Amino acid sequence: MKKRILTGDRPSGRLHLGHLVGSLANRVKLQDEYDQFVLIADVQALTDNYENPEKVAGSVRDLVLDYVGAGIDPQKSTIVLQSQIPAIAELTVFYLNMVSLNRVLRNPTVKAEIEQKGFGDSIPAGFAMYPVSQAADITAFEANLVPVGEDQLPMIEQTREIVRKFNNLYGGTLTEPEALLGNYPRLVGLDGKSKMSKSLGNSIYLSDSPEEVNKKVASMFTDPTRLKPTDPGHVEGNPVFIYHEAFNPNKEEVADLKARYKEGKVGDVEVKQKLAVAINNLLEPMRLRREALAGNPEKIEEILRDGIRKGREVSESVLKKVKKAMKIDYEFLS
Amino acid sequence: MKKRILTGDRPSGRLHLGHLVGSLANRVKLQDEYDQFVLIADVQALTDNYENPEKVAGSVRDLVLDYVGAGIDPQKSTIVLQSQIPAIAELTVFYLNMVSLNRVLRNPTVKAEIEQKGFGDSIPAGFAMYPVSQAADITAFEANLVPVGEDQLPMIEQTREIVRKFNNLYGGTLTEPEALLGNYPRLVGLDGKSKMSKSLGNSIYLSDSPEEVNKKVASMFTDPTRLKPTDPGHVEGNPVFIYHEAFNPNKEEVADLKARYKEGKVGDVEVKQKLAVAINNLLEPMRLRREALAGNPEKIEEILRDGIRKGREVSESVLKKVKKAMKIDYEFLS
Repeated sequence: MKKRILTGDRPSGRLHLGHLVGSLANRVKLQDEYDQFVLIADVQALTDNYENPEKVAGSVRDLVLDYVGAGIDPQKSTIVLQSQIPAIAELTVFYLNMVSLNRVLRNPTVKAEIEQKGFGDSIPAGFAMYPVSQAADITAFEANLVPVGEDQLPMIEQTREIVRKFNNLYGGTLTEPEALLGNYPRLVGLDGKSKMSKSLGNSIYLSDSPEEVNKKVASMFTDPTRLKPTDPGHVEGNPVFIYHEAFNPNKEEVADLKARYKEGKVGDVEVKQKLAVAINNLLEPMRLRREALAGNPEKIEEILRDGIRKGREVSESVLKKVKKAMKIDYEFLS
Repeated sequence: MKKRILTGDRPSGRLHLGHLVGSLANRVKLQDEYDQFVLIADVQALTDNYENPEKVAGSVRDLVLDYVGAGIDPQKSTIVLQSQIPAIAELTVFYLNMVSLNRVLRNPTVKAEIEQKGFGDSIPAGFAMYPVSQAADITAFEANLVPVGEDQLPMIEQTREIVRKFNNLYGGTLTEPEALLGNYPRLVGLDGKSKMSKSLGNSIYLSDSPEEVNKKVASMFTDPTRLKPTDPGHVEGNPVFIYHEAFNPNKEEVADLKARYKEGKVGDVEVKQKLAVAINNLLEPMRLRREALAGNPEKIEEILRDGIRKGREVSESVLKKVKKAMKIDYEFLS
């Protein structure tokens, strides 16, 4: 039997090239080898967007389009909408007993995110508890593996602790997941800032048109020390060349551009035009898949409904085992 | 329409005279005037009995027997088993976003209970979060009123805050409950300790046989300064007389015993025998109802199943409104 993988995203906007490099491309590979569940974490998204629920709800459809566009095949991967899986909430409530308050708050990933969000003195309890919710997500689908980067390891460790505590107390019930450590690089933004991010407005979206891509690439930050095309330029840390490395499959062209750039023998315009072509070539089949699906709303709904059905099947059976282990599977109810 | 009341208990053992005085007798009255829901809070009981789930599960049946014995009429009151109401867990997860971590931990009732439980440095997150779960219990059944004593007022205030925050953010959705402040006296234990409590082994259970009652009353702590029946005795703070006041409807007899006790004209034996008779008279109809139901397990199951059905009906409709307000009631799901 194939091992099960759980991945997912908070729906909070369209996906961009940073997501493609950081996780989507990897998932497209993983779905052949593994039984992959992709969670659209709308409830979790509400933990820091609770004042803006429209954004969350409105992004669900976009996420499905981006997924399918990027090559996630609903026949191979199960796309599950979190809010429609009540077992996750029930497991969350049970797991809250498996972990001390101090332990959750000591979680380095949570600590870092809390600082980053600037909650100050009023951290929403739901945000602080989200490692526990994630343990519920992971175990609800009996995931064996969770693809993460180094920085997310403490989250997986938290889940593993909860699973071990539960299994020790109530007997082997839950599947203990492992991290599938991967290299999930952060893509630099169009503006040269460390990270492509929707909130920084420095992103190329998977759903951008060729014209938008051309325009965005033309506006990219390059080498600030280079004033005219005949100046020798810097390639290292230059976003345009980082993107060439990441998205241009023509390695010869990239090597040639780099060499000429360093010697002051090519202008930014040519480098950028070739990059835009490469990105558009990459995105074109994604756009086509995306548009085909966008024009077929019934198909989107079918994907979501199928995923919810499968997700409920698995998670309800886990919940049943959990309640049995906790002795709250009263006989008279069966 | 009758106002709705929510009350309930953690199932963690049989009920005793302290429960009768503290809440049960009141509920028997309330059920005529109000639409009363009585929650068997098995999930909440697991927050501090998670290492001993058998105790929780095993007490559910006893609780139903004690309820019906005490006079709670399942035709008038809806007895709901918490673990079978998934909407409560979903609401809990949503409400965790409506309250800051600091606010929950500042709750005086929770603070006091945390100290009392002696968790030290490792407070289970579930225990710390239980005011949020209680808000879910109360609002899941659209309770207008929650009977509480002074010490529980902060819990109701916490629920009211969550309701107001939710309604402010998402539009009027939840019913804001009010405390139904009552005098819910604590009954002193058989041993004269401040509180009748299962864990102190100083209780008369509603299910005790007449012989057990006689034996327990005979062993009661009385006036330690009184060495023989001709010594003048103290009535104030004397558990035997506190019980006479509480359970002996023959006020003349009580007055006579008190007078003679103070004058050293009655022995403990007579005072206790008369108390045992009074308690047995009180418990006898309860025992009969209890035994009749105990002999009819199908009826117990029917009561639980009916309560779960009604509880799900109400709570699912609340959850539906909540999800609609939070925009996660996706159209394609309807």
